[in-house]
Amino acid sequence: MSFHFEILKKDKSSRARLGQYSTSHGVFHTPAFIPVGTQATVKAVTPEELREMGAEIILSNTYHLYLRPGHELIRRMGGLHRFMHWNYPVLTDSGGFQVFSLNSLVKVTEEGVHFQSHLDGSRHFISPEKAIQIQEALGADIIMCLDECTAYPASQEEASRSLELTLHWARRCQEAHASPDQAIFGIVQGGMHSDLRQRAAETLAEIGFDGYAIGGLSVGESKEVMFQVVADTTPLLPPDRPCYLMGVGLPGDILEAVRQGVDMFDCVLPTRNARNGTLFTRSGKVVIKNAKYAEDILPVEPGCACYTCRHYSRAYLRHLYLAEEILAVRLNTIHNLHFFLQFMNDMRKAIAEDRFDTFAQGFHSNWISGEEQLPEARESYLSRQGLRNVKNQQGGKFDVQ
Amino acid sequence: MSFHFEILKKDKSSRARLGQYSTSHGVFHTPAFIPVGTQATVKAVTPEELREMGAEIILSNTYHLYLRPGHELIRRMGGLHRFMHWNYPVLTDSGGFQVFSLNSLVKVTEEGVHFQSHLDGSRHFISPEKAIQIQEALGADIIMCLDECTAYPASQEEASRSLELTLHWARRCQEAHASPDQAIFGIVQGGMHSDLRQRAAETLAEIGFDGYAIGGLSVGESKEVMFQVVADTTPLLPPDRPCYLMGVGLPGDILEAVRQGVDMFDCVLPTRNARNGTLFTRSGKVVIKNAKYAEDILPVEPGCACYTCRHYSRAYLRHLYLAEEILAVRLNTIHNLHFFLQFMNDMRKAIAEDRFDTFAQGFHSNWISGEEQLPEARESYLSRQGLRNVKNQQGGKFDVQ
Repeated sequence: MSFHFEILKKDKSSRARLGQYSTSHGVFHTPAFIPVGTQATVKAVTPEELREMGAEIILSNTYHLYLRPGHELIRRMGGLHRFMHWNYPVLTDSGGFQVFSLNSLVKVTEEGVHFQSHLDGSRHFISPEKAIQIQEALGADIIMCLDECTAYPASQEEASRSLELTLHWARRCQEAHASPDQAIFGIVQGGMHSDLRQRAAETLAEIGFDGYAIGGLSVGESKEVMFQVVADTTPLLPPDRPCYLMGVGLPGDILEAVRQGVDMFDCVLPTRNARNGTLFTRSGKVVIKNAKYAEDILPVEPGCACYTCRHYSRAYLRHLYLAEEILAVRLNTIHNLHFFLQFMNDMRKAIAEDRFDTFAQGFHSNWISGEEQLPEARESYLSRQGLRNVKNQQGGKFDVQ
Repeated sequence: MSFHFEILKKDKSSRARLGQYSTSHGVFHTPAFIPVGTQATVKAVTPEELREMGAEIILSNTYHLYLRPGHELIRRMGGLHRFMHWNYPVLTDSGGFQVFSLNSLVKVTEEGVHFQSHLDGSRHFISPEKAIQIQEALGADIIMCLDECTAYPASQEEASRSLELTLHWARRCQEAHASPDQAIFGIVQGGMHSDLRQRAAETLAEIGFDGYAIGGLSVGESKEVMFQVVADTTPLLPPDRPCYLMGVGLPGDILEAVRQGVDMFDCVLPTRNARNGTLFTRSGKVVIKNAKYAEDILPVEPGCACYTCRHYSRAYLRHLYLAEEILAVRLNTIHNLHFFLQFMNDMRKAIAEDRFDTFAQGFHSNWISGEEQLPEARESYLSRQGLRNVKNQQGGKFDVQ
C-alpha cells in the first residue's frame, strides 16, 4: 500500500490532533481543508495557484466526471491527476451525494441507485461496485464508499432502514475495491440518532476501512445537534485512522470539529462565496459589492499575504465584481481559499505548540467583534504604506453576517 | 516630456520598421500588439500573466471607465495604472468609437456628442475637451483625440463633412491637452476616399501630434480596400512618429500593415475568440469544442511555450469549455495572447535580422497549409514526450477557418 496516515501529536486539552497522510502523489497535513474541484478544476484557479495558497489535496466529484467527460475518457488520458495537471493528492466522492441532491427522479434499490443526468436527462445506474470502478478509473488517492444520503429530518425507522442499506453497500464497496494505491473510506450515516451513528461507526470499523467519514450532516439540523453527532461519533472510530467530516463548513465549525478529533474537511464555501462576491476575513465576511467599498483603497484584509490582498484594493475588487469581470472571480477565489488554507495552517501550528484552545478562543472572539477592530487596522495599514494622504478614507467597516 | 519614440531600424524591402517607445511607465517595442483591457482588466488574466506572455502595453476603454466606475474615482484611487496593478504603459481611446458602436441614440453636434449609457440609459455629453479631461484623470501614457467614426459606406460628401468635424475636434483636443506625461495621438479618418485620407493626414501633421492613428478601417470594407487606404496613408504621416492602426486585426493583416509602416495595433480578437473557444495557431484557428479533440492528448500547438500548451491537452481544454469552466477562458486567453505577442516578437526579430519578407512568406504559407503539417507535429511531439503508447491518438487536425 502506498498510503499511510501518521498521527504526529495529540492536543492535551481536546481530541484535536496533528497528522500527516502520505500518498503516491505526496503528503498532506491534517487537520486539512480540501478545496472542491467538481469538474476536474477548482473553479477559476490553476494548480500552481492552489499550491501557492497552501492546498495539499483537492476533491473532485465522481458524479460530474462520470457524466462529463466520462471516467473512461479520463482513464485513457492518464487519470485525473494528469488530465487536470494536479500532481498531488486527490480525493473523489462516490457520486452518491450529487445523485441525491441534483436529481428529482432517483430510485434506490438494494442493488444501487437509478437516476437521470442533470445535463441531458439520460438514464444511469450506479451500484456500489460501479462507484468503485468509476473512482478507480479516475485514479484518486482516496475514494469513498457509495452511501445513501438519509433525508432530514428522518424518523428512527427511516434512518435505520437507510443506514442498513449504506452498511450493506459499504461491505460491497470494500469487496469491490482492488487498487492498492487507493485508500477507501467508509461513511458513517444514521441521521441525528446517536444509537444509529454508533451502530454505523462500529460496523464500518468491523468491515475495516483506511479512513472514516461522517456524512449526512450540515443538512438543515442545528449546529448544536451537528456537534453532538460529531462528538458522539469520533470516539467510536478507530483512532489510528483519519476522520473526515464531509461538506463542513464555516471556519468556526471546522475549528470545533477539529476539537472533537476530525482530521479532514471539504466545502464549497470559499469558492462559491467568492463567485458571489463574499469574502472571508478573520473578522467575518465582507460583501464586496457594498457601496462603502467604492473608494476604499485598503486590501480585503490588511496584513493578508494572498496575491489579491498584496496587489488590489477593495475599490478595484468591487469594480470588477459589478462589471462582472472574470478577474473578480479569480481574485476573490484566491483570497477565500488562501484564508481557509492559512486558517488550517495556523490551527496546525497551534496544536503543535500546545495552544489550540487559545487559538480557538482568539478566532471566535475576532470573528464576532470584527467591526470594532477595523478602524485601527486601517490606520496602521495606511501608515505602513505611506498612504495617509490618499483621498477618501471613509468606509471600510466589515459586514459581519 | 517623459515619452519618446525612437526608430531603431528600417527594413530594406518594405516600409516595416523597428522601434521603441519610452514612457514614464517603461518601454514598449514596435511593431507592438496592444491587448485590450476594456474595463480596467484584460479579461480573465492578471498583469503578471500579461507580462509573462510578453505584453508591454495595454489599452483601456475610456467610454466604459467613464461610465463605471467613473474617471474621477479612478483618479482618486491613484490613476488607472495603480487601480488595476499594471505599472507599464497604457493607452486609452477617446471613447468615441464605443459611443457610436454601443448606442443607438447618438446626437452629434459641432460641440460634441450626446449619448445614453448602455448600462442604465442615463444621458451624457462628451466634447473633445471632456474626452481629454477624462483621459487625463485616468492617467494613460498615450491618449487619443475624440473623432467621429464615419459610417460605412459613406459618400464623398458624407465622409468629407464627417472628416471636417474630426479635424476640428482634433485641434480642440490638442489645445485642451495639458499633461506633459501624456502623449496625444491624432486619428486619420476620411472613409475609403484617398483624397480625404490625404487631407486628414496632412492637417493632423500640421496641427502636430505625438503619434498618428488610422481609424475607420475594418468596418466592413474589403481587405484590398483596407490595405490600399493604409498604403496610401502611412507615407503621408510624419515618419518620426509612431503610426497606430486601430482595431486590426488578424495576424496576417497585422503583418501586411507592418509592411506598410504601421507600428502599433490593438484588437479584441485574441481575448474574445478565447472566450468563444477559438484558438490561434501558426496553422490557423482551432475550434476546441470539436469532437475530434475529445481524447486528443496534444497541447493546442505542439512546441508553443505558453503556460496552457506546457501543461494541458486539447482534451482537457475541450472538457473545460463544454463544462463552461472559468479556467477554460483563462487558459484559452493565455494561449491566444501569447500567440499574438510571440508573433510580434518574431516579427521584430525578423526585421532586426533583415528577413522580414521571408518571415512574412513563411507565415502566410503556414497559415494556409496548416492541415498538412499537423500529423508530423503530432508524431514528433509524442515521441519527444514518450507518449507513443498513449491510447487514442486519432484526430488532431486543425480547423483552418
